[in-house]
Amino acid sequence: MDTEIRELVERWAAAIRTGDLETVVADHADDIVMFDVPPPQDGVRGIAAYRETWPPFFEFLASGGSFDILELQVTAGTDVAYAFALLRCGSAEERERRPDQRLRLTLGLRREGGRWVVAHEHHSFPVD
Amino acid sequence: MDTEIRELVERWAAAIRTGDLETVVADHADDIVMFDVPPPQDGVRGIAAYRETWPPFFEFLASGGSFDILELQVTAGTDVAYAFALLRCGSAEERERRPDQRLRLTLGLRREGGRWVVAHEHHSFPVD
Repeated sequence: MDTEIRELVERWAAAIRTGDLETVVADHADDIVMFDVPPPQDGVRGIAAYRETWPPFFEFLASGGSFDILELQVTAGTDVAYAFALLRCGSAEERERRPDQRLRLTLGLRREGGRWVVAHEHHSFPVD
Repeated sequence: MDTEIRELVERWAAAIRTGDLETVVADHADDIVMFDVPPPQDGVRGIAAYRETWPPFFEFLASGGSFDILELQVTAGTDVAYAFALLRCGSAEERERRPDQRLRLTLGLRREGGRWVVAHEHHSFPVD
C-alpha cells in the first residue's frame, strides 16, 4: 500500500514538472478539497476548480521554478491513507536567497474501486 | 469512527482554548510530525517538541485570540484516518481587519490499541 501511494505521489509530482495536466488529475477524487498556498480562504473545491489551479503553476515551473520532493512519508491503512512531504519549491532566485525554505504538503487518500485516489491536499510555506 | 474522531478534535480544540496542555497532547503519537504556521521549515518532530509549541499560543489566546472550528470533515478508515478543518484564528484586531481569513488544518490519525491517535498535523494560513 505504501509503495502504491509513493508511486502515485511521485507520478503526480513528475506530471506537475512536465505540465501534464491529465496525469496530474488522473488519481484525484471529484470532490477533492485543496488548501492551496494562495487563497481562496475556504479551499479549492471540486476537480474542475482543482484543474484550474495548475496551468499558472506550470508557467512558473517553465520559467525555472522547482517542485522537488525531498522527503515523503506515507501512512496507509486498508481503505484510508495520508502522506506528508517536504519539497524544494521556488524560483531560481528564491532558492538562492532561501535555500532552506520548504513547501509542506499533506495528502489525504481513499481507496475506491481497488485503487487509491487523492481526496484532500494541503500545501503551505511556513510564515516567519 | 467519524464521531470518535470528531469528538477527539473538538476535545483537543477546547483544551487549546483553556490552555490545558495535558489534554492537548493526550491523543497524540510520540512520533508526531507537525507542520506549524511558523518554522521550523522541516516541521516540529516528536511529542516533546510538539508540547513546547503550545504555551506561547495559550498566551495569544489569553490575550483575546480565537481558535474556533467553523468546518470539520473527517474521513475515517478502519485503521487510518485524516480530517481537515477551517478555523477562525486571530487576534481581535485581525478578526476585525480580515473577517474572512481562515486557518487551515489537516490531521493524520492512526488507530493504535483500540483508539485513535493524531500522528500528523498541518496548520497554515493562505498567502496572498
